[in-house]
Amino acid sequence: MIYFDNSATSFPKPKSVIDAVNKSLVSYSANSGRGGYELSKNTAAEVFAARQTAADFFNADGAENVVFTHNCTASLNYIIKGLAEENDHFIVSCLEHNAVIRPLERLKREGKISYSIAEVGESDEKTVESFKSKIRKNTKAIITTHASNVTGEVLPVKMLAELAHSYGLLFAVDAAQTSGVLKLDVKEQGIDFLAVAAHKGLYAPMGIGLMIINSNYPLKTTVEGGTGSVSESPVQPDFLPDRFESGTLSVPLISGAKAGVEFVNRLCVDNIRAHEHELISYLYGELREMKNLLLYTDPESKSKSFVPILPLNVRGLHSEETAELLAADGICVRAGFHCAFSAHKFCKTDSVGAVRISPSVFTRKKDVNLLLNSLFKIAKSQ
Amino acid sequence: MIYFDNSATSFPKPKSVIDAVNKSLVSYSANSGRGGYELSKNTAAEVFAARQTAADFFNADGAENVVFTHNCTASLNYIIKGLAEENDHFIVSCLEHNAVIRPLERLKREGKISYSIAEVGESDEKTVESFKSKIRKNTKAIITTHASNVTGEVLPVKMLAELAHSYGLLFAVDAAQTSGVLKLDVKEQGIDFLAVAAHKGLYAPMGIGLMIINSNYPLKTTVEGGTGSVSESPVQPDFLPDRFESGTLSVPLISGAKAGVEFVNRLCVDNIRAHEHELISYLYGELREMKNLLLYTDPESKSKSFVPILPLNVRGLHSEETAELLAADGICVRAGFHCAFSAHKFCKTDSVGAVRISPSVFTRKKDVNLLLNSLFKIAKSQ
Repeated sequence: MIYFDNSATSFPKPKSVIDAVNKSLVSYSANSGRGGYELSKNTAAEVFAARQTAADFFNADGAENVVFTHNCTASLNYIIKGLAEENDHFIVSCLEHNAVIRPLERLKREGKISYSIAEVGESDEKTVESFKSKIRKNTKAIITTHASNVTGEVLPVKMLAELAHSYGLLFAVDAAQTSGVLKLDVKEQGIDFLAVAAHKGLYAPMGIGLMIINSNYPLKTTVEGGTGSVSESPVQPDFLPDRFESGTLSVPLISGAKAGVEFVNRLCVDNIRAHEHELISYLYGELREMKNLLLYTDPESKSKSFVPILPLNVRGLHSEETAELLAADGICVRAGFHCAFSAHKFCKTDSVGAVRISPSVFTRKKDVNLLLNSLFKIAKSQ
Repeated sequence: MIYFDNSATSFPKPKSVIDAVNKSLVSYSANSGRGGYELSKNTAAEVFAARQTAADFFNADGAENVVFTHNCTASLNYIIKGLAEENDHFIVSCLEHNAVIRPLERLKREGKISYSIAEVGESDEKTVESFKSKIRKNTKAIITTHASNVTGEVLPVKMLAELAHSYGLLFAVDAAQTSGVLKLDVKEQGIDFLAVAAHKGLYAPMGIGLMIINSNYPLKTTVEGGTGSVSESPVQPDFLPDRFESGTLSVPLISGAKAGVEFVNRLCVDNIRAHEHELISYLYGELREMKNLLLYTDPESKSKSFVPILPLNVRGLHSEETAELLAADGICVRAGFHCAFSAHKFCKTDSVGAVRISPSVFTRKKDVNLLLNSLFKIAKSQ
């Protein structure tokens, strides 16, 4: 099996991650922060260590600025619904995932908020200009994906942060596709709220996301409940991270996320990106020569930046058909719309979707060669 | 280590559960429902099998009526916020956990809804009478815990369901303390919405809850996002389970929950309860004779029913002090308020909290004897 669907979730998981989950299921299997006995204290210490590891990784103020969530989608909902007040206006990019669009659209249809979609331009300056042109008096925040999950295109978050802050707006970033692949430093990049999918580029198991808080804005809660703190109050605590962590934490996956971040730290984000980029560059170079092969991005572009994701199609085939033919050769890719239809409109792939190729640190050049062989066979038969 | 904190999370987890998580991390580690290749299809089949296992366990209509959530608190939030419309009124018991109280209190403080607290009476009939007396014209639903996490007292859910339905109200149950210990049949018991903590009596790892839907009521969503379905729509799908499952599912924990339910099925809920009840009865009998020992419930009562949970205190000690002394003897219990302060007001333990003893199927009589020895020593020194 050749796996090229790492943008959906990374596979395989590192042995250290699997071992950490296993150890956690035995050694950290009490409800953390709810008991004073040793197993519970050890569990709390493990959770704290995971928080601190993530805080260091993203340069958050402290461990308490790291919130563990169900997934990146939950983090984005917490951010969007935590910010949204009556009549607020938001600006997002045209490359957003449904994890951003659907919560906003829901609030919009309830008549609570409005939002505008900024086009991604031919240069970072034009993209920033486009966001700027959408700012209104009641704009609350700019919320943008760091990189598209369809095209891999990277948005200029630091410039967008500066734009947002110069207008007194808050700035939130969906790092589902970039954490572990691009440098993320919430302070240096001016990110107030960061949503992370730990099971992708951070190699954690599926089922854990992070919300990194780098702002004093009093975010409202989306989910309330028992926090093991101030139990006598019927009101959710206002301190971090308890405010956003109701109910029992997913300790085995938190241990997995800790091990995942440590794995990425050992390899180093820059090396991971360089490895994956080399594979995508090689793939792109070969595919450009291939007949009946449609490409939509140029990962070698000088004016744009991409994370290692390549969308493609075989002329005459729906993306799902190509994916099925690849699957018959044991090659795993994702086709369709990747929960981000507006990105497909942007790519003009909104009729057939696209086949998405996304490598990980475990992908080898020979895997790319097998993919090329299979694609060549499929394209030739068209 | 002697573990008596199974109401917080069960420990240890069965070997079959740990093995299932491990297998899942390797064999079902694609993003389910998002790809057409074999690993993704196998993952989707595993998730479906887990859904069907849970649907059978709770007698839900079909696999799609089982929603996988982050935890029982998330399930309760989904239910409460899914139901709550402007000016709705809810009725809850006086034994609710903060997972019910805090979401309701938040909505109440925003001026959206109101809620009343029904007293738990000396008999099931009196309890039902108390709920009945709280019904108003704008009452939308009765939401009740199946059993208190502080006292273990079981509420008459079937009678309350009949009351609710006779007034055209919806009926939701928090089964955090009862799933795996008491029979739960959403159809036979008339439960419209059931919230389950899989990591307690179902022996799953921490970080997974269930919401069982046995109603056609169009529950609103709390979290929206990518579902891998109707990606081209900016609106959350209206079909189950996708409507309530946004973002990547926690597949390793879903596999763990499946194995947990299978473990409980093999042992049989009635046997598990009988075993735990026998231990609590023995403990209670011995403690009644003990000097300086305060008990608040009678698990042998003829008029009331209890799940195997026993709250207690040593006269003159705060519950946290007793728990620390027990911890020094290697005995794990939870003290304090257990995120359910109103239950402590009911017990009149709202000044010192209570030490909570909760066994599991793995607890042995010799564990109870060690607990008794330690408690005797602590109580004697007072």
